[in-house]
Amino acid sequence: MVNLQEPVETKLEKAVNSSDIAQEIYQLITELYPICRSITGDGFRKTLRILQQHIPLSVHEVPTGTEVFDWKVPKEWNIKDAYIKNSQGEKIVDFANLNLHVVNYSIPVHQKISLDELKSHLFTLPDYPDWVPYRTSYYKESWGFCLSHNQFLQLQDEEYEVCIDSSLEPGNLTYGEYFIPGASSEEVLISCHACHPSLCNDNLSGIAIAVFLAKRLSQTKNHYSYRFVFIPGTIGSITWLSVNEANVHRIKHGLVLTCLGDAGNFTYKKSRRGNTEIDEIVSYVLNNSGHNYKIIDFFPYGYDERQYCSPGFNLAVGCFMRSPHGSFPEYHTSADNLDFVKPQYLADSFAQCVSILHILDSNQVYVNQKPKCEPQLGKRGLYRSVGGQKDSGLNEMAILWVLNLADGDHTLLDIAKKSGMPFDDIKTAADRLSQTDLLKKEILQHKATTI
Amino acid sequence: MVNLQEPVETKLEKAVNSSDIAQEIYQLITELYPICRSITGDGFRKTLRILQQHIPLSVHEVPTGTEVFDWKVPKEWNIKDAYIKNSQGEKIVDFANLNLHVVNYSIPVHQKISLDELKSHLFTLPDYPDWVPYRTSYYKESWGFCLSHNQFLQLQDEEYEVCIDSSLEPGNLTYGEYFIPGASSEEVLISCHACHPSLCNDNLSGIAIAVFLAKRLSQTKNHYSYRFVFIPGTIGSITWLSVNEANVHRIKHGLVLTCLGDAGNFTYKKSRRGNTEIDEIVSYVLNNSGHNYKIIDFFPYGYDERQYCSPGFNLAVGCFMRSPHGSFPEYHTSADNLDFVKPQYLADSFAQCVSILHILDSNQVYVNQKPKCEPQLGKRGLYRSVGGQKDSGLNEMAILWVLNLADGDHTLLDIAKKSGMPFDDIKTAADRLSQTDLLKKEILQHKATTI
Amino acid sequence: MVNLQEPVETKLEKAVNSSDIAQEIYQLITELYPICRSITGDGFRKTLRILQQHIPLSVHEVPTGTEVFDWKVPKEWNIKDAYIKNSQGEKIVDFANLNLHVVNYSIPVHQKISLDELKSHLFTLPDYPDWVPYRTSYYKESWGFCLSHNQFLQLQDEEYEVCIDSSLEPGNLTYGEYFIPGASSEEVLISCHACHPSLCNDNLSGIAIAVFLAKRLSQTKNHYSYRFVFIPGTIGSITWLSVNEANVHRIKHGLVLTCLGDAGNFTYKKSRRGNTEIDEIVSYVLNNSGHNYKIIDFFPYGYDERQYCSPGFNLAVGCFMRSPHGSFPEYHTSADNLDFVKPQYLADSFAQCVSILHILDSNQVYVNQKPKCEPQLGKRGLYRSVGGQKDSGLNEMAILWVLNLADGDHTLLDIAKKSGMPFDDIKTAADRLSQTDLLKKEILQHKATTI
Repeated sequence: MVNLQEPVETKLEKAVNSSDIAQEIYQLITELYPICRSITGDGFRKTLRILQQHIPLSVHEVPTGTEVFDWKVPKEWNIKDAYIKNSQGEKIVDFANLNLHVVNYSIPVHQKISLDELKSHLFTLPDYPDWVPYRTSYYKESWGFCLSHNQFLQLQDEEYEVCIDSSLEPGNLTYGEYFIPGASSEEVLISCHACHPSLCNDNLSGIAIAVFLAKRLSQTKNHYSYRFVFIPGTIGSITWLSVNEANVHRIKHGLVLTCLGDAGNFTYKKSRRGNTEIDEIVSYVLNNSGHNYKIIDFFPYGYDERQYCSPGFNLAVGCFMRSPHGSFPEYHTSADNLDFVKPQYLADSFAQCVSILHILDSNQVYVNQKPKCEPQLGKRGLYRSVGGQKDSGLNEMAILWVLNLADGDHTLLDIAKKSGMPFDDIKTAADRLSQTDLLKKEILQHKATTI
Repeated sequence: MVNLQEPVETKLEKAVNSSDIAQEIYQLITELYPICRSITGDGFRKTLRILQQHIPLSVHEVPTGTEVFDWKVPKEWNIKDAYIKNSQGEKIVDFANLNLHVVNYSIPVHQKISLDELKSHLFTLPDYPDWVPYRTSYYKESWGFCLSHNQFLQLQDEEYEVCIDSSLEPGNLTYGEYFIPGASSEEVLISCHACHPSLCNDNLSGIAIAVFLAKRLSQTKNHYSYRFVFIPGTIGSITWLSVNEANVHRIKHGLVLTCLGDAGNFTYKKSRRGNTEIDEIVSYVLNNSGHNYKIIDFFPYGYDERQYCSPGFNLAVGCFMRSPHGSFPEYHTSADNLDFVKPQYLADSFAQCVSILHILDSNQVYVNQKPKCEPQLGKRGLYRSVGGQKDSGLNEMAILWVLNLADGDHTLLDIAKKSGMPFDDIKTAADRLSQTDLLKKEILQHKATTI
Repeated sequence: MVNLQEPVETKLEKAVNSSDIAQEIYQLITELYPICRSITGDGFRKTLRILQQHIPLSVHEVPTGTEVFDWKVPKEWNIKDAYIKNSQGEKIVDFANLNLHVVNYSIPVHQKISLDELKSHLFTLPDYPDWVPYRTSYYKESWGFCLSHNQFLQLQDEEYEVCIDSSLEPGNLTYGEYFIPGASSEEVLISCHACHPSLCNDNLSGIAIAVFLAKRLSQTKNHYSYRFVFIPGTIGSITWLSVNEANVHRIKHGLVLTCLGDAGNFTYKKSRRGNTEIDEIVSYVLNNSGHNYKIIDFFPYGYDERQYCSPGFNLAVGCFMRSPHGSFPEYHTSADNLDFVKPQYLADSFAQCVSILHILDSNQVYVNQKPKCEPQLGKRGLYRSVGGQKDSGLNEMAILWVLNLADGDHTLLDIAKKSGMPFDDIKTAADRLSQTDLLKKEILQHKATTI
């Protein structure tokens, strides 16, 4: 008889001044775009310094050679310049123009070589002849250049001068971390890989959105503690998990944020466990978003959820994106640039994240203190006085639902789903009832997330 | 290979002489219709006295002011007469014609008032201008009249005399109860609210059907004990649960019966637990009824299932109806009259209730006493003697199914469902096998209903 | 992102030289076809002797009168000759032409009788007037003949001489058994009824396929031990279970093989438990077979799965067939002959059985020895060295899947299903990882099959 479902988004959108936040997020991406980041080195440090202008990140350095589970922290890579000159001495490929031109982690080189020899160090994208690919060689010491296929086709059979002014030496792996304490010591982890050079969607979009989520959460009273980490992909999460292993049990929920600025539909990749509260909440928010979206099962490929969801940790961490990794042609190319991400998509992604964290933080369990029969709402001013009216108020229904299901087993989201009423109506009813003798928040026995 | 499903109804219909029972139920409704019932008072008592002509109801009186959980038993309301006279002294609204004309629980009043002032005490249905609404004011002391909107529109701007000769004083809340002991002390609760004045579907239909179900069950040997309660809505079930709290654990299954006389399809509102045996059985019976029907999830609004299914009790009580509460325009109006309910719908509802209680009472668990390999049926006269015939008798298949699934875990209904055979064929096979050394009823370990 | 599903069959078909095995299976059926088998007697023994030319069956004899659960081993039946002669002394029905002409287990008779009296001993198939039915009378001592309805219609009203030169005397029930020990003492049971006379699909097809499966398994190193039993239907499995009751707990999985040579689609009748590993694997193999097929729930009628799945044993035994029992008109008639079964269908059935047993035997549980974060595959030669390539090799994905799900809870089939990759790719990855320090087979804690 009651179907009061409305998009949860409605209220949350009001809370987010879309236009302002869109510009702020996009502006941060623009600022970060030119920096040549890698999994180690000064580009990563410079990136963190810019983020510190928004949130008080702590910066951590882990020395090269540190054993982190089955891995070792690699040498630190830095680069000053790189180019290819033709026989006339003209720079035909120049790192200063686009840092993707150098294979990331290239060892230093400076020599003259023939076209034939050069070709074995060049990478192009024949299917997208105007784009420059993004390539890395983290775990095999080598060097190379990336260029457009059209330029490659015009190379003359002459002698070239190649120069990569880089260093690959003992140093540190750097990561940034921002912890926002909440009422509970249980933590929500938000993780972004920040190791990619001039690529916007993957992953300046995730980084920038995380920064503004952190900013927002630092201004509200939260149930959970929130931990934001900005790390290099794979080796960064492995290092972070290794260094922080003793405290990993505090992480109850988490999200990897990436590829959140393109025009594609939302995609949520579930945690390995597949039925955790964060999985449920993201599905609920997307289902109420009015957008098309896709929920996909966990698979052991992609971003840092691979590490968080390795069987020895098996954390409740999913991955929230628009177009997923590898599914769009611009992925890992020079076309993933400032034109590929748009302020409105970034703002929309941000709004969904806000909804997700809002529900997650509010999704507590309550206990009806008068569970035998319905309590008399009238004497507490919670009920209409004249019977027989056909349409009862929405809040009254929400109050009845909360009282009926507040048995210590149902979260507010469970109640919202069973009732078909908006989450915020249920939350409002629970808040109102908590001010009477009828309802108490369950403190000790928080609903366990299923393993 | 075997699909022998036939409507269970076939046999049960034979057991019910539809035409007779239809008339008997309708006749009882006709007799009860004129009485002005409320949640307390002599109208309720008079109603119980009429029911006592059919079943030996015990009548219980609970004093005003008794604390019943979060509530108190209200004052007792009685009424002798009520009217509105125009300036010519003509009774333009007369309680003697239709008791719905008075807002139920109106305090006494006798005065002359202007049209303007009168209007604030009048209730109409503009959408159904010929119908008189039904209104109550149990928990706020006030008075009022209900009338058709067409009559309302013709009221002249003159002085009126209003009179309500009622009393609202300390007294009692009355309810009726009929207990039919069975082989087991476990109880089935059948509950009807009996507080509505001249309204037929809601709920003289439920009352009358319950009476004839009780009559029938009092004439058979039953496994369960059956408890029929005729109570005022909400405060009645709260009072009953409070007074009988120590014995509530005996109630294993239950049904609220209401709105069972209209032309609508059957609707079953599941218990809060949603997966109890009564939920399963009603679904099964409706699915085999040949009728369209709807099964809906529990919601904390409606009839007395709200109290039985409050989290502190959480009983396996569903609500069986045709058109549900509030879904038909005649609901809570003068149009819910003797024309709105029809003998054939009442008889059909009765037949479904009989089927439900028949299966519920028979749905025992049996144990095969020779569980290793099939026993030799031939030497017990339970098997054809010449092999190779393509069509074996139905009973033989039922016997094989019962023997195979009589492992202490399956009820007869489980076996009927797994086999696709009619419940009564399975029951017949179990009865026949129980006469041999092959099968015994499980006594101690009745299949627990799931919480 | 990864959908690498291919029919498992592809590889397995390669392993089976279809043409050779098809002829071998068909040849064995041809050899067995003329023998007059019954549930006891020399026809059954002769059949086992022929099977012994392929596999070293042990032959067991259980004396008449032995108590086997609720039954007794029956008298042994043997037959030398049988005929009906007309008044001219012509043999119009001759056992020597077709052993189906005699009702199986007919007691001896030699007398002259009228047509009228004879008719009460004759069985025909009016709907298929050219076919001779198959009839038995195991548990009621009687005699009879089967003939085509067309011949029946031509019988003259004259005196006939009937002769059945049979014996029904204390003796033995005979069965054959072949045990192939594996690494584990846990057993897989393959059971075929071998009591039918000249009927090809039911069940020479099952017998012949089982023989070649046994031959094949005897040549490979297997995880499980395999037990093949060739028994008379019903009384044979009851006898076998009774004689071997103490060891039945070793049977972890099983299949009844029957009706595997006709042109119909595959049908798998699940075990009574319905969710066992063998049920899962057969469904998986058929789903990947490229054929249409049907999975049906257990029902307590059919073949020896009735006994294996009786509630006192409740073994994980399903029944694998093409057209099921009773669903084709040729069933239990002379039309179930050497034309009705075809080499290609037999070979196809054999190939599916090979796939099923291959997966069953390989379906172990593994444990990742470095479960915290992903291990570094590169240093073990298990990973591409240059990042950023869009298509990673299939094996690499299989390796990631195995490492992620090798947590002691997932079988290889679970991993194949979750990954959507072919079972053999997952198995290859597990084998390869087992050669490193990263993966170990779980020995003690084999995934329990659900009861």
